[in-house]
Amino acid sequence: MSRLHAVLAAIDEGLNASMERWFELLRMPSISADPAHAEDCRRTAQWLANLLADMGLKASVEETGGHPVVLAHSVDTMHAAPRVLFYGHYDVQPVEPREAWHSDPFKPEIRTGADGRARVYARGAADDKGQLLTFLEALRAWMQVHEGRPPFPVTILLEGEEEIGSPSLDAFLKARKADLQADIALVCDTNQWDAETPAITTRLRGIVHDEVVIKGPNADLHSGLYGGPVPNPLHVLARLVSALWDEEGRVTLKGFYEGVSDLPATLRRQWAKLGMDDARLLAEVGLKPPAAGEKGYTALEKIWARPTAEVNGMGGGHMGPGAKTVIPAEAFLKISFRLVGRQDPQAVREAFREHVRQHLPAGFTARFAEAEAGAPAIEIPEDSPPVKAAAAALEEEWGRAPVFMGCGGSIPVVGSFRHILGMDTLLVGFGLPDDAIHAPNEKYDLTSFHKGMRSWARIMARLAETTM
Amino acid sequence: MSRLHAVLAAIDEGLNASMERWFELLRMPSISADPAHAEDCRRTAQWLANLLADMGLKASVEETGGHPVVLAHSVDTMHAAPRVLFYGHYDVQPVEPREAWHSDPFKPEIRTGADGRARVYARGAADDKGQLLTFLEALRAWMQVHEGRPPFPVTILLEGEEEIGSPSLDAFLKARKADLQADIALVCDTNQWDAETPAITTRLRGIVHDEVVIKGPNADLHSGLYGGPVPNPLHVLARLVSALWDEEGRVTLKGFYEGVSDLPATLRRQWAKLGMDDARLLAEVGLKPPAAGEKGYTALEKIWARPTAEVNGMGGGHMGPGAKTVIPAEAFLKISFRLVGRQDPQAVREAFREHVRQHLPAGFTARFAEAEAGAPAIEIPEDSPPVKAAAAALEEEWGRAPVFMGCGGSIPVVGSFRHILGMDTLLVGFGLPDDAIHAPNEKYDLTSFHKGMRSWARIMARLAETTM
Repeated sequence: MSRLHAVLAAIDEGLNASMERWFELLRMPSISADPAHAEDCRRTAQWLANLLADMGLKASVEETGGHPVVLAHSVDTMHAAPRVLFYGHYDVQPVEPREAWHSDPFKPEIRTGADGRARVYARGAADDKGQLLTFLEALRAWMQVHEGRPPFPVTILLEGEEEIGSPSLDAFLKARKADLQADIALVCDTNQWDAETPAITTRLRGIVHDEVVIKGPNADLHSGLYGGPVPNPLHVLARLVSALWDEEGRVTLKGFYEGVSDLPATLRRQWAKLGMDDARLLAEVGLKPPAAGEKGYTALEKIWARPTAEVNGMGGGHMGPGAKTVIPAEAFLKISFRLVGRQDPQAVREAFREHVRQHLPAGFTARFAEAEAGAPAIEIPEDSPPVKAAAAALEEEWGRAPVFMGCGGSIPVVGSFRHILGMDTLLVGFGLPDDAIHAPNEKYDLTSFHKGMRSWARIMARLAETTM
Repeated sequence: MSRLHAVLAAIDEGLNASMERWFELLRMPSISADPAHAEDCRRTAQWLANLLADMGLKASVEETGGHPVVLAHSVDTMHAAPRVLFYGHYDVQPVEPREAWHSDPFKPEIRTGADGRARVYARGAADDKGQLLTFLEALRAWMQVHEGRPPFPVTILLEGEEEIGSPSLDAFLKARKADLQADIALVCDTNQWDAETPAITTRLRGIVHDEVVIKGPNADLHSGLYGGPVPNPLHVLARLVSALWDEEGRVTLKGFYEGVSDLPATLRRQWAKLGMDDARLLAEVGLKPPAAGEKGYTALEKIWARPTAEVNGMGGGHMGPGAKTVIPAEAFLKISFRLVGRQDPQAVREAFREHVRQHLPAGFTARFAEAEAGAPAIEIPEDSPPVKAAAAALEEEWGRAPVFMGCGGSIPVVGSFRHILGMDTLLVGFGLPDDAIHAPNEKYDLTSFHKGMRSWARIMARLAETTM
């Protein structure tokens, strides 16, 4: 591993130059949501393509119909090592409310906190410009030390529409499938557990939405003249919602837990040691224990590894000011289910629809929204070779083993890579919970940037030697 | 009772003249809700005051701050008979949608149906111009036959704001309390059971409203990142609503049934014979049995004589189109309770608030609307002297005993008479369920008008001899 040490030394020595490139990237206001910044997005893509070409990759700006994609390939493909696809996104969130920023969001500023830690403040400092550069700068140092050769055959894919839901990405992946083949994808867009503890995100919950309008009486009725014998759609809605959980907090839909497997004991133990107890998690949102949800699981386990049914919206009847004595003709419900393991989105939705139908009084009807596909959960086994390789590398750099984190939300690109390109994704990132991504005064710690680059160099060394 | 027969003969002979006065009253567009018709309301009030003066009463138009009140007193007060206050309202509902009318709403038209029954179509034909005239025209005939003497000391109070919630009435009753003293109030603004069966409405449910906003997390949360351990205000709302009833359909609020007495067996038997079974009542609103509500009661009993809890509106979270993965910070509920017997509106509201508080997870708060007074139920004992007198009179006219009806909604003036003037109200009316009051093509059957007048003459004769 003497060559790795040379790469790490090159990263340390090149830190100022890397930061200059980072700042230059941050000065480009590549706000994908704002059409006024379309040209800035294109300029950013071109700047990144130049950066990659300068590193020795074959790079191009590719049209998508929306903001362009930056695509780059290593030219030396004689390696026996696994092929890697690295994904990042160069677009950023809007900056509103602008007045809440302490410095210009597109003039990166280094400020040192009371804790002595230096941080770079700018829109995109972390998400995802800082994060994606940790990989690219590590790759640059690697190739510099290895006479222009990368650690493995590598493809770089930098998207410009992540913050607006990646409307063009899936079509691009399908059209360019052959160019994007790899053994594993790497994404640098997630967090560490905390400033001292690295993490690999191995579990992403899936999701399926549904929406229903329940129709009862043939018109809105006077609640005095009809109240009592006439079933009220709002009562029906309340009953079918509250019947979604049993006394143990388990979702009652038929077959809901099919495909849900128990959390490995090692993971439960690791998570239990993180200090995130129910009181701490609930305090974040202004509440106190006991937590809601399934009995027998910690709050963290519920978010990272257990499925849920969550009502996102409901209503009916008189919703304006004051009183109105009405039994409404209908009521609506919007719901989503977070999925884990091998839960099937379609089966869950169908079980929900059956639950609704079974709660309808005689003469009631239910009108469901058009069924969307939903997304199954993603789980990368913690003992799979790439995860083990990355874990060992992170432990070397940080002096402690990474946490295998879950993510309660979904990261759509990971599903796209699995379903379109047929590959798993290794999610390693160096963001911190206080980075304020999507918010005013976004920042990225200088140590995140520096040790992030070093972490990637170590991961590169290990992945290059991993058989997948 | 020979003088009664002379009164009935005078009514029969004077039918055409009575109808002319009715039509003249109907031609005045006294729409209280529309400021453009304020002058029409005043003109109608003056017309009625002239009518009453012409009959031999001391009549005046009285200012209220809103549309005026017509007030009239009999001048001959030497009677030993009970004093009577008759109430009606001369204002009418708007006519929209105008295009749905088959004739001009303010040009009364007689049309004979396929069933051979003649009906008068006009806004207010029934509600309340036709109905109030049945009493006034009967009184006119009585006084005509009795040398100008009424059957009892009588005060006439005709309001012009009933269709807009009687905003000025209570203040007027309080200010003129001394002028309005009587032993009983008569109101002609209710229905018969059907075209052949007269009715006395002896039970009006009371009502109390409440409204609450439940506040949970300190902000709207991402349902992926927090879904599971964080209590969702919409779930809390659904649970507390569905917990309002037990398996038997009984309201679970503490002390809710205090003051609710069993329905007399005679009344249950009478109602059971009316042919209004659950299937027929639910079919009216497009539904089928089984009915909702308390087990062990018919649909009619539930509406006329049992209390309810009815959600009139609720909502929270994402209510617009499409999906949004949110756990909302709050949710709202609007509810009303229909009351019977001696249920106390304040106690019911307080029990509801306690129920809400008991369902709140730790850290949640509930913000209730400002408490309004609510209205207790009204029940006039079916065996009280005025009800018995009216029942006997109606049976004489119609050849069958009247139904003692309940009314699921409230008639606020009845509560005002009880609470401000300290008197009970006898509710006798000749409307039919198909009169289309408040709707296009409102009508009043000619037999309702004619037999209504005859009914009042008979009631006058009996009430004059009743000791209260």
